[in-house]
Amino acid sequence: MIAGDVYKMESHSVSNIVQRGGTILKSARSKEFMTPEGRKKAYDNLQALEIEGLIAIGGNGTFTGAMIFGNEYGIPTVGAPGTIDNDLYGTDYTIGFDTAVNTALDAIDRIRDTASSHDRIFFIEVMGRDSGYIAIQSGIAGGAELVMVPEVLTPISQVVETLKQGWSRSKSSSIIIVAEGDEEGSAQEVADKIKVQVDENADIRVTTLGHTQRGGTPSAYDRILASRLGLGALEGLIAGQKNVMAGIINNELVYTPFEDTIRLPKPINEDLLRMVKILSV
Amino acid sequence: MIAGDVYKMESHSVSNIVQRGGTILKSARSKEFMTPEGRKKAYDNLQALEIEGLIAIGGNGTFTGAMIFGNEYGIPTVGAPGTIDNDLYGTDYTIGFDTAVNTALDAIDRIRDTASSHDRIFFIEVMGRDSGYIAIQSGIAGGAELVMVPEVLTPISQVVETLKQGWSRSKSSSIIIVAEGDEEGSAQEVADKIKVQVDENADIRVTTLGHTQRGGTPSAYDRILASRLGLGALEGLIAGQKNVMAGIINNELVYTPFEDTIRLPKPINEDLLRMVKILSV
Amino acid sequence: MIAGDVYKMESHSVSNIVQRGGTILKSARSKEFMTPEGRKKAYDNLQALEIEGLIAIGGNGTFTGAMIFGNEYGIPTVGAPGTIDNDLYGTDYTIGFDTAVNTALDAIDRIRDTASSHDRIFFIEVMGRDSGYIAIQSGIAGGAELVMVPEVLTPISQVVETLKQGWSRSKSSSIIIVAEGDEEGSAQEVADKIKVQVDENADIRVTTLGHTQRGGTPSAYDRILASRLGLGALEGLIAGQKNVMAGIINNELVYTPFEDTIRLPKPINEDLLRMVKILSV
Amino acid sequence: MIAGDVYKMESHSVSNIVQRGGTILKSARSKEFMTPEGRKKAYDNLQALEIEGLIAIGGNGTFTGAMIFGNEYGIPTVGAPGTIDNDLYGTDYTIGFDTAVNTALDAIDRIRDTASSHDRIFFIEVMGRDSGYIAIQSGIAGGAELVMVPEVLTPISQVVETLKQGWSRSKSSSIIIVAEGDEEGSAQEVADKIKVQVDENADIRVTTLGHTQRGGTPSAYDRILASRLGLGALEGLIAGQKNVMAGIINNELVYTPFEDTIRLPKPINEDLLRMVKILSV
Repeated sequence: MIAGDVYKMESHSVSNIVQRGGTILKSARSKEFMTPEGRKKAYDNLQALEIEGLIAIGGNGTFTGAMIFGNEYGIPTVGAPGTIDNDLYGTDYTIGFDTAVNTALDAIDRIRDTASSHDRIFFIEVMGRDSGYIAIQSGIAGGAELVMVPEVLTPISQVVETLKQGWSRSKSSSIIIVAEGDEEGSAQEVADKIKVQVDENADIRVTTLGHTQRGGTPSAYDRILASRLGLGALEGLIAGQKNVMAGIINNELVYTPFEDTIRLPKPINEDLLRMVKILSV
Repeated sequence: MIAGDVYKMESHSVSNIVQRGGTILKSARSKEFMTPEGRKKAYDNLQALEIEGLIAIGGNGTFTGAMIFGNEYGIPTVGAPGTIDNDLYGTDYTIGFDTAVNTALDAIDRIRDTASSHDRIFFIEVMGRDSGYIAIQSGIAGGAELVMVPEVLTPISQVVETLKQGWSRSKSSSIIIVAEGDEEGSAQEVADKIKVQVDENADIRVTTLGHTQRGGTPSAYDRILASRLGLGALEGLIAGQKNVMAGIINNELVYTPFEDTIRLPKPINEDLLRMVKILSV
Repeated sequence: MIAGDVYKMESHSVSNIVQRGGTILKSARSKEFMTPEGRKKAYDNLQALEIEGLIAIGGNGTFTGAMIFGNEYGIPTVGAPGTIDNDLYGTDYTIGFDTAVNTALDAIDRIRDTASSHDRIFFIEVMGRDSGYIAIQSGIAGGAELVMVPEVLTPISQVVETLKQGWSRSKSSSIIIVAEGDEEGSAQEVADKIKVQVDENADIRVTTLGHTQRGGTPSAYDRILASRLGLGALEGLIAGQKNVMAGIINNELVYTPFEDTIRLPKPINEDLLRMVKILSV
Repeated sequence: MIAGDVYKMESHSVSNIVQRGGTILKSARSKEFMTPEGRKKAYDNLQALEIEGLIAIGGNGTFTGAMIFGNEYGIPTVGAPGTIDNDLYGTDYTIGFDTAVNTALDAIDRIRDTASSHDRIFFIEVMGRDSGYIAIQSGIAGGAELVMVPEVLTPISQVVETLKQGWSRSKSSSIIIVAEGDEEGSAQEVADKIKVQVDENADIRVTTLGHTQRGGTPSAYDRILASRLGLGALEGLIAGQKNVMAGIINNELVYTPFEDTIRLPKPINEDLLRMVKILSV
C-alpha cells in the first residue's frame, strides 16, 4: 500500500498456489506503516486506486495496524486470523495451525520409531511463544509423556517425577514436548536442567523444529478454514463490517472486534489439557 | 466375543500404535453375530468374563448389531463413529475422515502438478457410497473444477457445460472429483460418457484411489478426535449411557441414540457446497 | 523455439522451484516441430537469438525430434532423460522415476494397512507402457505378492495359482501390482478376469494411480540425479558433444548417441526380477 | 544371543513390517558382549541351538564385535551396513541413508517456504558425526547456500563471506546445513558465532533435526537396498563368506572384509562436493 505496488487478482491468479506453503504476497512487517507518514502514503495510494476496503491476514500486530489505519482514514478492514500458533481470541483455530500441528506430529512419530532403549529421553521444541496449542495438540496426537506450555506452570521437579514414574512402569523411552515460550526455557535448557537431576549418563536428545512448522503443503483442514474465513472476510466487508476479525467458533462464522482479539487472551482448552494427563499415563 | 478371544488391554498396550493406519484388533464383519445363536455365544462369553459393557467402533452396521444385542441381553453399548465416509448422523466428523480427505487431497495436488496441456481432463474417484463429504472437502481444498456427489444430481450435460466454460477462460486443465456413489456411475464411467460428448480426441485420464483412503498414518485431527470420542464413549458407559453413539457436534460431546444414527440421513453441509461453486469459477 | 518465446535464465531463476513437481517450462509435445516448416521457424529463431546449442529434456520422442533437427541444421543437442517410466537405454535411472516409485509405494503401504480379511485381493495399476520398472521396484519395496509387467508374460492362470498358494499359507490378503502396459490389460481388466476364475464372491479392489505418479515434490534422489545430469548435459555440450543423451551408468556419467537410446530396448533388471520372486513367497 | 532369546523367523514373520521405521528386533549395544564371558555365553547358546552362521546389521561397532567373536569361536558372520550416516567403507550407500536424506530435505523445503525477508539466515543441523553425506546430499537437493561437513574445513569467515555475497545478489534468505560433527560446533554454536560477525540484529533461526532422521517410513530406495543387501548377506554366508560386509558398489554386490570397513575411512564424494559449490551460487 505504501509503495503503491498493487496487482489486480482474479480467480485464475490463485490457480496452482493452493498446494504451496508460505506466501505469494511476500509482504512482511512494515516499520513505515507504524508512522503517520507511512499510513498517509498508504491512504493516498488507496484513494488514487479507488480501493474502498481491506482484508488483512495476520495476527495482533497486523490487526493493531489495521485498526489505527481504519480509525485515522475510515477505510474499513476485516481481518483473517493467519498465525500458526492459534493464539488469537475470536476463533477456535487460526489458518496454518493444523498444518503446524501435523508437522510437529510427524517429528514425534519419527522419534517414537527410534525409541528402543530404556532410559532415553527426547525433548522436542515446538512453536508457541504465548500459546501451548501446538504443544498440546501434537502431544495428545503423538502420545507424548509430558507437555510443557506457557499457560501452565510445569516445574522441573514435576518433569523428573513423571519420568521416574514412567521408568518404574518400564516405558521404553519418554517424549516431552516443550512450547518455545515455556517458563522453564527452551527445550535445550529444560534438557540441561533435567540431565543434572536425573542421571548424568541418561541419554537425552533434543530436537528443535523451528521454522519447519511454518512451511509445507497446507493440510485440507487449513485450506478449507482459509477458504471459509477468506470468504467470510470478503462477505463481511461487503456487508459493512469493519475493524473486526472473521473467525469460526463452534462451526459458526463470527466477527470479533479487533480491540477484543488484541486485548483478550485466548483461553487454553481445558478438555485437551485434561486429556494430556489421562493419555500420558 | 463369539470366539472368546479376549485380551486385557492396559495403557502400555497402545504404546507405539498411535501412528499406524489400519486396526490392531483385526476384527471384521461377522455373519455369525447376525444370528441369535452367535449372539448367545457372545453373551455367554461376556458373562463368563464378567464384562459389563461394550464400546463399539464402526458405522451403522456395527451399531445395528450392538442395538439388537443390547436389547436382547441388556449389555450396555456406547458407540464411537469409525467410518471414513463421514456418513453418520450425530457427529460433525467421523474417525478417519480427515485422514481420508488429506489422502485424496494429496492425489489432487500431484495431478495438478502435471496439468499443463490445454484440453486435459482428470477424473479422480474418491470414497463415499452414500456421502459426498470426502469429495466436497477434498475438492474445495484441492481447487477442483467440479465435484460430483450422491446427494446432488449433477447431470453429464452440466459437467460438459462446466468444462467448456473453463476452456473459454483458458484454464489449462480441469480436475473433476467423483464420489464412488455418484448417480452417473464410477469415475471411469463418467469419463467415458464425457469423452463422447466433448471430443473423441480429448485427453481424459482417470485415477481411482480406492482403499488408499482407508490406510496411512492418521492425521493429528483424527487422533485427537479419536481420543475425545474414545474417552467420551468410556465415560458415557461408566455414567450409565447405553445404545448411544458418542459424537462431537459444534465442539461439544453429544450422545445420540443408535436408532437415530441408523435412521436419520446426515445432511450435506450447504455452506461447503456453496463454496465449491464459488471457488471453482 | 518455434514461437520465439525465449527467456534468459540465471541462477536465481530457479530459486524456490527445486521442491515443486511438474514443470515451470510448460512446454509440451509440438506437432508443428514434426514438420520441416516448424523446424525451419525454430532454426531461424535460434539464429536470430544467437543460440548455439540445446539441452533437451524428455524421452525418445524428444530425442528423435532433436536428432532430426540437429541433422538438418547442425545445432548440437545433448539430452537429459526425463521420463518417469525409466524406459530409456543409456542410463540406469531417469529423472522422476524415484519419485514415481515412492508415490506408488505410498499407495501400496496405505492399502496394506487395510488388509485384514482373508480373501481380499488388491490390484494396483502403476505407470509403465513398455516398462515394468515402476511396478517391480514398488512391488519389491512394498512386499507385493505378484508383479505383472510388459517384459514378462504372466498368464492369468499363474496369478490364480499364486493367489491360491498364498491363501493356503493363510496370508491375510494379496496385493498385485499391474504395470499399465501389461499384456493382460489394465488392472481393472485383470481383476475382472481373475474374479471369474477365483470366486465370484471374492472381495477384489482396484486402485489406479494414474497421473498422481507424475507429480509431487521430487525425492532427494531425483533432485541429485537431475542436478548431475543437467550439469553433465551442459558440460557435454560445452565440450562438443552432440546428438547424445547424458546418463548415469554404475555411478559414472556416460553419453549415449540418441540413435542408440531410441533404437535399443532397456533390458529389465534380472536381479530385481529374481528378488520379486524370492520376497513374495 | 547372550540371553538365548531366539525366535525362528519365516517369510510371514516380516509381513506388514516393511513400511515401519525403527527396528522390530529391539536389540541394542551390549556391554556384556564386549567381555569374554559374554561372548562365551553367546557361543554356548548358538551351539545349543545349532545355529551355524550370523548376519549382523549395523556399523563398525557391530562389525568389530562380530570379527572378534568370529575369530574366537569360528562362527561365520556376514554384515549388512545399517547406519544412517553412510559412513562405511565398502558400500556406496548404507541402509537408512536415503530415508534420512529425504527427512532432512523435507525440513529444508519447509523452511524455504517461509523465506521471505531479506536478511534471514537459517541453520539446519543434520546427522553425521564423522560424515558429511547427509549434509551434502540434502544440501544439493534442497538448494542450500552452504554445507558444513566434518571432512572439509569451512571457517566461520568463509560462511560470513558467502552470506554477504548472497545478500549482494539480493537473495531473499540463506539456508546453511551443518553436519553435527562439523569442527565449528553444533548449528546453534555456529549460529552464535555468525551472529556476532554479521549483525546483532540479523534474524537467525536454528533447526536441529536430531532423531527425526532415524525414524519414519523407509523410502523405496532404502527398502530395495536392504532387500539386496539382506539377500547378499544370506547368500554370501551360504557360499562360505565370513567376516565380511555385503555392500553395493557401482550397482554390484561386493564383500569387503570387516577389517577394511573398520580401518578405512570412507572418502567423501568429490563430484557432489563440486556440485554443492556450483549450485549454491
